[in-house]
Amino acid sequence: MILILKNDCEKAKYEKLTEWIKNLGLEIHCSRGENSTVLGLVGDTSKVDIDLVRSIDIVQSVKRISEPYKKANRKFHPLDTVVDVGGVKIGGGNFVLIAGPCSVESEEQIYSVAESVKKAGATVLRGGAFKPRTSPYSFQGLREKGLKMLLDAAKAVELPVVTEIMAINQLDLFADVDMIQVGARNMQNFELLKELGKTDKPILLKRGMSATIEELLMSAEYIMSEGNENVVLCERGIRTFEHYTRNTLDLSAVPVLQELTHLPIIADPSHASGIARLVEPMSLAAIGAGVDGLIIEVHNAPEKALCDAAQCIRPDEFSALVKKVDALLPVVGKKRK
Amino acid sequence: MILILKNDCEKAKYEKLTEWIKNLGLEIHCSRGENSTVLGLVGDTSKVDIDLVRSIDIVQSVKRISEPYKKANRKFHPLDTVVDVGGVKIGGGNFVLIAGPCSVESEEQIYSVAESVKKAGATVLRGGAFKPRTSPYSFQGLREKGLKMLLDAAKAVELPVVTEIMAINQLDLFADVDMIQVGARNMQNFELLKELGKTDKPILLKRGMSATIEELLMSAEYIMSEGNENVVLCERGIRTFEHYTRNTLDLSAVPVLQELTHLPIIADPSHASGIARLVEPMSLAAIGAGVDGLIIEVHNAPEKALCDAAQCIRPDEFSALVKKVDALLPVVGKKRK
Amino acid sequence: MILILKNDCEKAKYEKLTEWIKNLGLEIHCSRGENSTVLGLVGDTSKVDIDLVRSIDIVQSVKRISEPYKKANRKFHPLDTVVDVGGVKIGGGNFVLIAGPCSVESEEQIYSVAESVKKAGATVLRGGAFKPRTSPYSFQGLREKGLKMLLDAAKAVELPVVTEIMAINQLDLFADVDMIQVGARNMQNFELLKELGKTDKPILLKRGMSATIEELLMSAEYIMSEGNENVVLCERGIRTFEHYTRNTLDLSAVPVLQELTHLPIIADPSHASGIARLVEPMSLAAIGAGVDGLIIEVHNAPEKALCDAAQCIRPDEFSALVKKVDALLPVVGKKRK
Amino acid sequence: MILILKNDCEKAKYEKLTEWIKNLGLEIHCSRGENSTVLGLVGDTSKVDIDLVRSIDIVQSVKRISEPYKKANRKFHPLDTVVDVGGVKIGGGNFVLIAGPCSVESEEQIYSVAESVKKAGATVLRGGAFKPRTSPYSFQGLREKGLKMLLDAAKAVELPVVTEIMAINQLDLFADVDMIQVGARNMQNFELLKELGKTDKPILLKRGMSATIEELLMSAEYIMSEGNENVVLCERGIRTFEHYTRNTLDLSAVPVLQELTHLPIIADPSHASGIARLVEPMSLAAIGAGVDGLIIEVHNAPEKALCDAAQCIRPDEFSALVKKVDALLPVVGKKRK
Repeated sequence: MILILKNDCEKAKYEKLTEWIKNLGLEIHCSRGENSTVLGLVGDTSKVDIDLVRSIDIVQSVKRISEPYKKANRKFHPLDTVVDVGGVKIGGGNFVLIAGPCSVESEEQIYSVAESVKKAGATVLRGGAFKPRTSPYSFQGLREKGLKMLLDAAKAVELPVVTEIMAINQLDLFADVDMIQVGARNMQNFELLKELGKTDKPILLKRGMSATIEELLMSAEYIMSEGNENVVLCERGIRTFEHYTRNTLDLSAVPVLQELTHLPIIADPSHASGIARLVEPMSLAAIGAGVDGLIIEVHNAPEKALCDAAQCIRPDEFSALVKKVDALLPVVGKKRK
Repeated sequence: MILILKNDCEKAKYEKLTEWIKNLGLEIHCSRGENSTVLGLVGDTSKVDIDLVRSIDIVQSVKRISEPYKKANRKFHPLDTVVDVGGVKIGGGNFVLIAGPCSVESEEQIYSVAESVKKAGATVLRGGAFKPRTSPYSFQGLREKGLKMLLDAAKAVELPVVTEIMAINQLDLFADVDMIQVGARNMQNFELLKELGKTDKPILLKRGMSATIEELLMSAEYIMSEGNENVVLCERGIRTFEHYTRNTLDLSAVPVLQELTHLPIIADPSHASGIARLVEPMSLAAIGAGVDGLIIEVHNAPEKALCDAAQCIRPDEFSALVKKVDALLPVVGKKRK
Repeated sequence: MILILKNDCEKAKYEKLTEWIKNLGLEIHCSRGENSTVLGLVGDTSKVDIDLVRSIDIVQSVKRISEPYKKANRKFHPLDTVVDVGGVKIGGGNFVLIAGPCSVESEEQIYSVAESVKKAGATVLRGGAFKPRTSPYSFQGLREKGLKMLLDAAKAVELPVVTEIMAINQLDLFADVDMIQVGARNMQNFELLKELGKTDKPILLKRGMSATIEELLMSAEYIMSEGNENVVLCERGIRTFEHYTRNTLDLSAVPVLQELTHLPIIADPSHASGIARLVEPMSLAAIGAGVDGLIIEVHNAPEKALCDAAQCIRPDEFSALVKKVDALLPVVGKKRK
Repeated sequence: MILILKNDCEKAKYEKLTEWIKNLGLEIHCSRGENSTVLGLVGDTSKVDIDLVRSIDIVQSVKRISEPYKKANRKFHPLDTVVDVGGVKIGGGNFVLIAGPCSVESEEQIYSVAESVKKAGATVLRGGAFKPRTSPYSFQGLREKGLKMLLDAAKAVELPVVTEIMAINQLDLFADVDMIQVGARNMQNFELLKELGKTDKPILLKRGMSATIEELLMSAEYIMSEGNENVVLCERGIRTFEHYTRNTLDLSAVPVLQELTHLPIIADPSHASGIARLVEPMSLAAIGAGVDGLIIEVHNAPEKALCDAAQCIRPDEFSALVKKVDALLPVVGKKRK
């Protein structure tokens, strides 16, 4: 960590600051220029509160040299982590295709979608039972009942399952879930992250809508620091001024994350744009950027008036997408199954 | 709600859509132009899932006419809500000054700050016991112990107290807290909001870093829809491309919120900028914009090496700020105490 | 265009508004609900100033139905435009690979890079002579002299050339340039756009750092409305809160633009991230998203101390990238040359 | 400037880098830690291209210590600059009130508004003759004719005048204009800035919609480096994800700019929000934040159907606002006239 001090820094304050740093067990390298003094802090600076240091009177600015995350850091763990979800491998060249409906709506619906996506080539089933909705008046998911339907359907088609948790007190219900998803809105629900860190379940950690890449890694670190290192990151779009798409899928984050961490990274092209027509091009784009997998919403409910009219990805469209995915994977050196 | 349909819309799909709308209990006003058809939906549209409608094949775009929030809506509750926090009124012309340290660090510290801010004119004491920190390696607050210290100090100086909750299972510990704060990172922790809605405690709801004004109101609605209407909103800065300040305090949100809702709105100039020198000008700016109060971090720990060097707002600076606040309030038609 | 009026709208104001609308030659379809009145404006609304209408007292909100751009609109021109740049076709399935140095620095440098990129497969040469730099103290380009060097080198290797213009009074110097680039900072330099619209040169129009997709199309419309329809759009990254990369390449804009307009769209992965290591993955990602070409910075100056140390894309790296590009193009149905 | 090198940095590359730095006339202070090497560059680093340095292979990251602007820098010019616009002083405690219509529409209109705002207390007249419009089909201003009307009206009421320039070739027409405005879209039209720097006219430089505080200062530096130091900065809202208001007025930028520069700073509450009802609260907020003046749009055209219905600030509303402004100024230590 480097501290740049102001040029008119009082001696008494300077001495108090350096004493405080030394008490933290850090060494100081000092170099004085004409207009400013630069302190280099050497040692384990991961515990130094950078916001506190920045607020000190005589400090002009602060810069970290080493990243504040350790267990998620590729520097200390150069090889790709491969996460195993019910026998399906993610990372290290293994590409995963997760698919299923946004919400579990009925037994009939989830069985039908599960069969279709399995047939089309999906290797993990997704489906929402507890739904985080902006409005308290919107459908909040079938909750416990939906979770049971999802697990039954997954068992029937022999696919592992991933579904979202919304609060610590739901954890007991997730005993048979293969992978637990933490949604974008809960990415910094630190109490929840700590509890998930005490389990040994694979965790799918979605990037918050306004989370930086470093914050995403710090949230992974929360889980890992409690002992659970089975974390898969998910880029699902960030909030920007552009409102034509619901969010802006930040695909540059994919190669950046691959440099910084050994954890697998997948993308969610369905939630990012909110426009079904964009799922195919953005899936192919994500593969170009180097993701280790995709999570895609697929619906099929021909019996319902609305869904017949709705332009969501239907099983046949998903099937067509899988063919293109399979044509691309060899070019980027990845394999499925 | 208005639906604009595509100009090449199939008749069968059109009929399924309109049937579905009618089944929701809504009336349809249809007007056909040369290039598009416009459907006006009349009735209680708050339950219509706008994302679902937007995704329908034949729908080009959708626009809400009526706001999706009801209990928080000024249209249905024209008069300002006045929230009572341990005898201190917020809203309807009553200005509140909340002050205290970021974290409770020791008995000595919190008693000393409590006395100072009381003397300077603060009417509510703040202090963090459970701290949401980006890094798992940073100080996480004194938790239960800190909460007890805070309550004791508040009692000693006879100030009501506001402090942050981070998870539902902490709720029992908050029995003696006068006002419960929901932090920016938990603004869309919907399970927590629902539980807080079942209490009768005043809630200080901070705007998420990337939450729109409407999303903030929908989160207030989550609390209110469960029965608790004692909600105070807090603007604390949004995330933008400008990184000179930690966040960008969105003061335009203040008069906008005052049009849309009857709930009181306060501002947090300390967290928004992360720069102590900006607390005074941004406090005065917030008053100009029309806030019903301020929440300000004040430290005093002359015995500690670091804090002596730190440029945080100290009690004497807070005291000077209060004088300027009191000079401004009559100009904007507000009163303190 | 749809106007939603306030529910307490005065009759006199209502009549003045509708009279004004009729004077613009538009028809009005009015439908009155319980809480609001909706006016549908039928006719050529592209001349209606939406900001002005939005500011009218009795108007609650406004929504366009038809897009404000015409010549750039795919609705009125369903087939892909193919732009010809010195014999090289862009769009309609034709993929272009533009490469060259950021700035022209010397004759030796530009000849050497030109030869290398030609050999590796580039079909258009780029290079900056007039450089928009944030600081007045940074190198501003070799200007007229650099432009001559660039044109000579392009002629020698038989490649068409694209280079950036910064002001109207430079236009005469661009007589022999095959394609004129408008940089992100000048995307809304409307006087410049109008002048370029009076020429018949192909224009490469880069998206401004904070320009919406619609604003980019409106800037294209400025050029096209003056008669020049040879416009190629370029996504080069938008400004967001994420600062790990210089800008965030908004690849969702590519399929969105392809729906809205018939103009070709290319991407600039070099400027977007500012990190040379990201050029390859983001190039492949852009192809997955469906671009009609790439513009890539390539340096080679082994004689200079700095550039030897610099991690920029060198000709050999560019050559390796071209091989991967060529492996991907058939999957997305595009061809080069 | 501080360079943090990668820990596996090759010796040969290291030597080439340090040689290159020394050739720029800079001294190097090197300190080696266990995991990284830090180079401190001492001397005039304003000419070092930070983007180039950042792209060097062996460099992990770079941090400026000294600001890249000099003439605009308060460090080298501690006292407030006071800019004189036709006898009206801005800065150094002198508060300016600029008012007038968005566009000059007719002689009658501009004379009438000029008289009204003068009477209400405005000290400078504004009005657009050349209008930057997103759409080529929108009204582009009365141009030369409008400029003449504006100058005549200003003369009649004895107010100095500020109006916007859009291109270098319009400069001759601005001979009698007291202050030339550079709009947000032209903030980085560097060729225009350089030309304005060769005049001695006061320049009103508006912050670009996505310009950082530092970029705004660098644009001021472009003007100042050519000799013209009469620059007034204007905060007019930045582009964020929040779309309830057109832009987000970044008032924190005001006290930040006052630390960094000696130039006066004013705010434009009319353009920032695009909502006339917000002009009053945001004007008062800006004064709380410490601005040296306001620029406000005022219309009066009772004869026109539309404007009668429009909710723009009318002279009587402006007059009421001025009274509140005058009540606030003493609290923040500013004076008008």
